[in-house]
Amino acid sequence: MQFGLTFFPVFDPALRAPADYYDEVVQLAVRADRLGLEHVQVVEHQLSGYGGYSPDPVTLLTAIAARTERIRLTTGAVVAAFGHPIKLAASLALLDQLSRGRLDVGFGRAFLPAEFDAFGVPMDESRVRFAQNVETIVRLWTEEQVASDLPWAPFDPVTVYPRPFQAPHPPVFVASTTSLDSCMAAGRAGHHLQVVPTVTPRPQLQEMLAAYREARATAGHGPGRIQIKYTCYLADDRAVAHADGRRWEANYIEHMATAVSSWATRRSADYAGYEQLVDKIRGYDFDRALGNDTVLAGTAQDVADQLAHVREWYGEDLTVSLHLNPGLIGATKAQRALDLLVEEVAPRLDVAMPTAAEADPALTGPA
Amino acid sequence: MQFGLTFFPVFDPALRAPADYYDEVVQLAVRADRLGLEHVQVVEHQLSGYGGYSPDPVTLLTAIAARTERIRLTTGAVVAAFGHPIKLAASLALLDQLSRGRLDVGFGRAFLPAEFDAFGVPMDESRVRFAQNVETIVRLWTEEQVASDLPWAPFDPVTVYPRPFQAPHPPVFVASTTSLDSCMAAGRAGHHLQVVPTVTPRPQLQEMLAAYREARATAGHGPGRIQIKYTCYLADDRAVAHADGRRWEANYIEHMATAVSSWATRRSADYAGYEQLVDKIRGYDFDRALGNDTVLAGTAQDVADQLAHVREWYGEDLTVSLHLNPGLIGATKAQRALDLLVEEVAPRLDVAMPTAAEADPALTGPA
Repeated sequence: MQFGLTFFPVFDPALRAPADYYDEVVQLAVRADRLGLEHVQVVEHQLSGYGGYSPDPVTLLTAIAARTERIRLTTGAVVAAFGHPIKLAASLALLDQLSRGRLDVGFGRAFLPAEFDAFGVPMDESRVRFAQNVETIVRLWTEEQVASDLPWAPFDPVTVYPRPFQAPHPPVFVASTTSLDSCMAAGRAGHHLQVVPTVTPRPQLQEMLAAYREARATAGHGPGRIQIKYTCYLADDRAVAHADGRRWEANYIEHMATAVSSWATRRSADYAGYEQLVDKIRGYDFDRALGNDTVLAGTAQDVADQLAHVREWYGEDLTVSLHLNPGLIGATKAQRALDLLVEEVAPRLDVAMPTAAEADPALTGPA
Repeated sequence: MQFGLTFFPVFDPALRAPADYYDEVVQLAVRADRLGLEHVQVVEHQLSGYGGYSPDPVTLLTAIAARTERIRLTTGAVVAAFGHPIKLAASLALLDQLSRGRLDVGFGRAFLPAEFDAFGVPMDESRVRFAQNVETIVRLWTEEQVASDLPWAPFDPVTVYPRPFQAPHPPVFVASTTSLDSCMAAGRAGHHLQVVPTVTPRPQLQEMLAAYREARATAGHGPGRIQIKYTCYLADDRAVAHADGRRWEANYIEHMATAVSSWATRRSADYAGYEQLVDKIRGYDFDRALGNDTVLAGTAQDVADQLAHVREWYGEDLTVSLHLNPGLIGATKAQRALDLLVEEVAPRLDVAMPTAAEADPALTGPA
C-alpha cells in the first residue's frame, strides 16, 4: 500500500479566492513530495463549483512539478474527449518532459451533461471517443507520422513534439470506470486503473479488480497499478474530524447534486441508469458512508483501522489517493492531516514512507 | 524602452533532448526575472522543428511562473483558432491565478497550412475565427452566463472558472499582425500589439504603429503596449556573435522554409501573397538583415547602436523581446548575452533595469 494526494475543489467560487486555493494545493503537494507520498492527483471539471476550479490538470500539475523533486504527477483524470488528440498528446508530453518523467496520465470519460454540451461532444459517443482518443494519443506518443480517420479529429500523418520523456510513453490509467468490461479492457491493454469506491458497491469493486488483475496477467502485462480515491477527514480529535466530515461531505453532495441535476431529464445509451444519479446522491448519509468505509474520518487510529479494511478488501497493491483538503477545510487542517498520515497512520499499517525518515525537521512546522 | 526574452525553439528535435531545452528556458527566465527584464514570451507551434518544441505556451509559462517572482508571462502567441474558447479561457485564467496576475496574452492567427490541417481548421476562416474566438474568450473572462453562436464552438450560457486574477482581464496583445486594418482594429479595441520587424518592411511597420497609436488615442484608451521581437546574437567578441548569427539564422531559415513549403501550392483568401513566402524566406541574407537592423548581432556596443535605431524608428514606448537562445546556441552563450544586455547594453541606452541594482551578486556567476 502506498499513499498519494488528490485535489478536487468543491465550493462556491465566490467564497474563496482561486489564487489562495492554488497556493494551498501547491504547498500541500510540496509537503507530500518531501514526506514521501507517491503521487499528487488533479481532477478535471468545468464550469461549476463541482471541481470547476480545476479545468486543466496539466497546467496545475506543471505548477506542482516545478516545485517538487520526486513525487509523481497524476491526472485524475483528464477528459480524453474534450480536447484534440494532438493538443492533448503534446501538452501531456511537455509536462512529462518538464518533470523528467514523473507523469501518470489518468484518462476519464466524464459524466456531466453540461460539460459535454459546452464542448459540443455528444454523450452517446462518449465511450467510442474515449477509447479512440486514448488510443490515438498513445500512438502519437510512440509513433511518428501518425494519421487519424476519427470523424471528430481526422488528420494526415503528423509527428508530435516534444516526444514524452518516459519510454515508451507515460503510464496510462483508465479512470473511475464502473464496468467489468472496461476493467478487463484496461487490463488487456496494459493500462492502469483509477477507481472510486464511493460510486461502486464493495462486491462489485472487488469483482472489477479481480477481473482487471486477471486480464493483465492473461495478456502477459505483469501487475498493474491501482489508485483508489477516498476523501479523508483526519484530525487529532475525532469529534472535530467527524464534524468536518459532516459539513464538507454535505457541501460535496450539494454541489454534485446541482452538477448532475440535468440527468433528471436526460438519457444516454452510454450512461445507463444515470437518470437515478440525483436521487442516489441526495440519499448520501455520512454515518453510513463512514460505517461502510467509503469516507475516511477520525483519529489516526480510526483512519488506520479503516484503511486496514480497504487493504483487506481490495489488495495490498493499492495506492490510496487521499483528498485531505475538501471544501473549505483549509490549509492548516489539511497539513495536519498529511502529517498525521505520515507520522501516525502509515506506521500503524506498516507502510514505509520512502523519504520520510530523511525529511527536513523544518517541514513538521507550518508550511 | 524595456526588455523581455522570447523563446522560439527551432532545431531538429533529434539533436537536442527536450528536457534539456526546457531547463535552459526556465533557467534563463529565472535569471531574467532577477535581472529586471519585463517579460518572458513563449511561442506556439506544432508538429515540426520550426517551434514544435513549444506546442503549449500556457504549460511552459506555468513552469516559469512557479520559479519566478515578478517577471510578466507572455504568450507570443497562443493560436486563438486551435483551441475551444472555453478551454483556452479557463487555462489562461488558471495561469493568471497561479502567477497572481502576471499573464499577458498574445493571441495569434497562425499561418502554417500543416497546423491548420492537423486541427481541421479551414485557413479561409482564420481571420473570422481569430477575431471571434478572442472576443468570446474576453467575454468568458469578464461576464457570467456567456453563450456562443459561433458555428465552430456553439454553447448555451456558461460561466468559466477560475475567473482571471487581473481585472477586468489579462492584457490582450494582438500578435504579429502585418496589416494596417488589423492594427487599427487592435487599437480601437484597446488591445496591445506584438510585431515582428523581420516580416514587415520599416516604412510599413512605422505606418502600422502610427495607425495603432492613433486608433487607441481616438478611442480614448490611452497608450498601448508594443512588443517588438528580435533575434539577438550578443557576445563579448563580434566575430563570434556574427558567426553564431550566420549559423543559427541559416538554421532558422532552413526550418521555416520547410515549414512553409506547402504554401508553394496553396492559396487562401485570408493569406494573400503567402504563396511567395518560400522564395522570400530563401532570399534571406544575414549581412543585409544585420545592415537593416532586423537581426541584432555583435558586441554590447554594436547591439546598443542597433537598438538606438530601433527606438528612433519605432518609438520610446517599445518593449523589445529578445531571442537570446536561438537554435542550438546553448545556455552558456545565452546567459552571457543576457548578462551583457543588462550590464552593458541597457546602460548605453539609458534603460533602467528595475531590479538589477538589487540583484544577488551570486547571479552573475553561472546559473
